[in-house]
Amino acid sequence: MENDTLTVPINAATCTGHLAAVGDALYVIGGKWKLRIIIAINEGSRRFNELQRSIPGISAKMLSNELKDLELNGFVKRSVHTGIPVVVEYEPTDYIDSLRGVIEALSAFGKSHKEKLQAEG
Amino acid sequence: MENDTLTVPINAATCTGHLAAVGDALYVIGGKWKLRIIIAINEGSRRFNELQRSIPGISAKMLSNELKDLELNGFVKRSVHTGIPVVVEYEPTDYIDSLRGVIEALSAFGKSHKEKLQAEG
Repeated sequence: MENDTLTVPINAATCTGHLAAVGDALYVIGGKWKLRIIIAINEGSRRFNELQRSIPGISAKMLSNELKDLELNGFVKRSVHTGIPVVVEYEPTDYIDSLRGVIEALSAFGKSHKEKLQAEG
Repeated sequence: MENDTLTVPINAATCTGHLAAVGDALYVIGGKWKLRIIIAINEGSRRFNELQRSIPGISAKMLSNELKDLELNGFVKRSVHTGIPVVVEYEPTDYIDSLRGVIEALSAFGKSHKEKLQAEG
């Protein structure tokens, strides 16, 4: 991962290529739910119903589809524990850590933007 | 902006509060187009038609709505240059720099994720 551009301000020169890479990123983790699901799984909600409860507004169908995408992209591992009843759990993989920078940056921005709005009244 | 959590891995403890802050961030810059428009404006596409051409797939109505949102949130300034013809330009504000961390993190992730997919064949 190249971090050498992190100290350079955004401008026409440094941004060439960003549109494509950001587009690739948003293709994988964009949309309304994916990052929310990733954070919920990381916070310890692992079973389907737990996940659905922890993410207000998501439907079972949407959650199921998003989990399949996240599994395909290697962020989440689906484990079936045989027994009575059968328990299906979604675990974060090591690869989920590659999103740490994105989540931290979004979290920092969300926090500072909220403070800005509050300061403006 | 607090960056002290940047060195701590994501887990249940450090993530408390992230869901809310990330939710706030996604509310402002989430969705299919906003970050793409922000990057395009930073790359130097400033007029409406230029912007629409530089963002494949966006409709005029969608672009217009998104630009209004971005203006309301302080990322973009709309300037009308009177003359014949009247020229309307969208300029990045200083506040757009607050998104630098988010864009850099998404760009780095998009790049490394693409490399992973290519390595896996």
